[in-house]
Amino acid sequence: MVFSQRLKQSAAAVEARLDAVLTQVAAAGAPDRLVEAMRYAVLGGGKRFRAFLVIECAAISGSDPNHAVHTAAALECVHAYSLVHDDLPAMDNDALRRGKPTLHVAFDEWTAILAGDALLTLAFQMLADPGTHGDPAVRAQLVAGLALAAGAAGMVGGQGLDLEAEKLGLPKPMTIGHIERLQAMKTGSLIRYSCEAGAIIGAADEEVRQALRTYGEKIGRAFQIADDLLDLEGDAQTMGKSVRKDAGKATLASLMGREAARQHLLHQHTEAIGALEMFGTRADVLREAADFVVTRRS
Amino acid sequence: MVFSQRLKQSAAAVEARLDAVLTQVAAAGAPDRLVEAMRYAVLGGGKRFRAFLVIECAAISGSDPNHAVHTAAALECVHAYSLVHDDLPAMDNDALRRGKPTLHVAFDEWTAILAGDALLTLAFQMLADPGTHGDPAVRAQLVAGLALAAGAAGMVGGQGLDLEAEKLGLPKPMTIGHIERLQAMKTGSLIRYSCEAGAIIGAADEEVRQALRTYGEKIGRAFQIADDLLDLEGDAQTMGKSVRKDAGKATLASLMGREAARQHLLHQHTEAIGALEMFGTRADVLREAADFVVTRRS
Repeated sequence: MVFSQRLKQSAAAVEARLDAVLTQVAAAGAPDRLVEAMRYAVLGGGKRFRAFLVIECAAISGSDPNHAVHTAAALECVHAYSLVHDDLPAMDNDALRRGKPTLHVAFDEWTAILAGDALLTLAFQMLADPGTHGDPAVRAQLVAGLALAAGAAGMVGGQGLDLEAEKLGLPKPMTIGHIERLQAMKTGSLIRYSCEAGAIIGAADEEVRQALRTYGEKIGRAFQIADDLLDLEGDAQTMGKSVRKDAGKATLASLMGREAARQHLLHQHTEAIGALEMFGTRADVLREAADFVVTRRS
Repeated sequence: MVFSQRLKQSAAAVEARLDAVLTQVAAAGAPDRLVEAMRYAVLGGGKRFRAFLVIECAAISGSDPNHAVHTAAALECVHAYSLVHDDLPAMDNDALRRGKPTLHVAFDEWTAILAGDALLTLAFQMLADPGTHGDPAVRAQLVAGLALAAGAAGMVGGQGLDLEAEKLGLPKPMTIGHIERLQAMKTGSLIRYSCEAGAIIGAADEEVRQALRTYGEKIGRAFQIADDLLDLEGDAQTMGKSVRKDAGKATLASLMGREAARQHLLHQHTEAIGALEMFGTRADVLREAADFVVTRRS
């Protein structure tokens, strides 16, 4: 399995980079408690799947791996911030994440809000840094793309729709189309952008960029369906987070039925693989990644 | 008073720009409720002092005013986000802001957290947008500078120190030096950066940049001391926000005494004016702005 090795490699590279960046943040005068909370949120956990996608999509686009690691680390900051804020009592009110107490449980609520804010801000600082790429046009593109993917029309908007459904029962009735929109924004946009960011770093032509964007979109969708199925079928120990939290909540699996959701998942997988055709065997690790999304157990 | 006219002009320009940008955000697919909350937080209120500083410092550096308005609007998004998050129950727990209920009171807590996140993200999107400046190196610099000023070693870090003092009683005993560090980060860094951003947009040389940075640093400090004094002496109706909330909280005014704090305020004012010497009469409006910081009543 090339995939599992590469996933581990990119996770290790990103972990080391994040550690170094947070040491710089502390040296620049950030308060100790805040830095500790940021470290708690972003280090030592997670599969680093988004980081892997950035690094491998950059490699396929012909990029310097070092540029990709910096960008991959920035994407992991955004992912970590989104989990910290989503877990807050006013949002999903989750106590367990990656097998550890969530940040607001381990520290407190105000520290969690601020650490999330700081991680989001840090991601943009990293992307704008000359160390990310020698060409400022590439850096500006990376920033603009991340902001679009993570903002009100992307990830934050998706979380907004999710909470409207959960807290306000809207829309009524819930439709498959609405859930697809919600999930494309909430989880899909950052996964798709991880692939696109790789293409931006590699200064790929529009054809390559579109292929990687499509691949990202499809595996993002597959990732979310698999997540919903795992929530129904998994157990907390394997998952390292609370399960059955979707009980009573409309998901694609609950609206379509599990079997139809599984079929839908396989269909996304086929389309993701299809998007990689132009790359030949160079994309084998991305094909394995698509397999992983469909077969993962946690 | 040229200053009060220019303050109104820049406020109107920034308000119009923010309105247009938020219309685009809605058109891009952001949920209605989230966009409404963002509009509530960022439109129709505030002196837009940071926007004024960006625009006037850009003008002195020879910039196209249109570029400056876009950047000024981005800075106001960051300022608005910081107020929304600071007002949250887990933080300062404030119910009144600019004479209106705070966002989490008018909507709810999760909407307030997300609207803040979305405004912060939008600021970076705006700065990275080609409409901000034709040179991507300028855009990347604007992003990097904002992230540094607003992040863990800047504004967010300052709020962290403020909450450590309030919630955890740290450090014990509180010192003047610690409060100065806290305030330089919490309020000072964004005000200073507003001035610096103007210099970046105008591609000013290092001498001009340093002068505007110093000016920004001094009026930022003056702004905060004046704020503390107003909190002691003002009334809620004039201020449009809760007052005496610093009661029992250590501020420069409470540690130094009001009279010493007023002397300190005047000293910052003198230094701010001093930093503008090289600009001659072109900087008169910035001189008036420094006067305003010292004499304002709300």
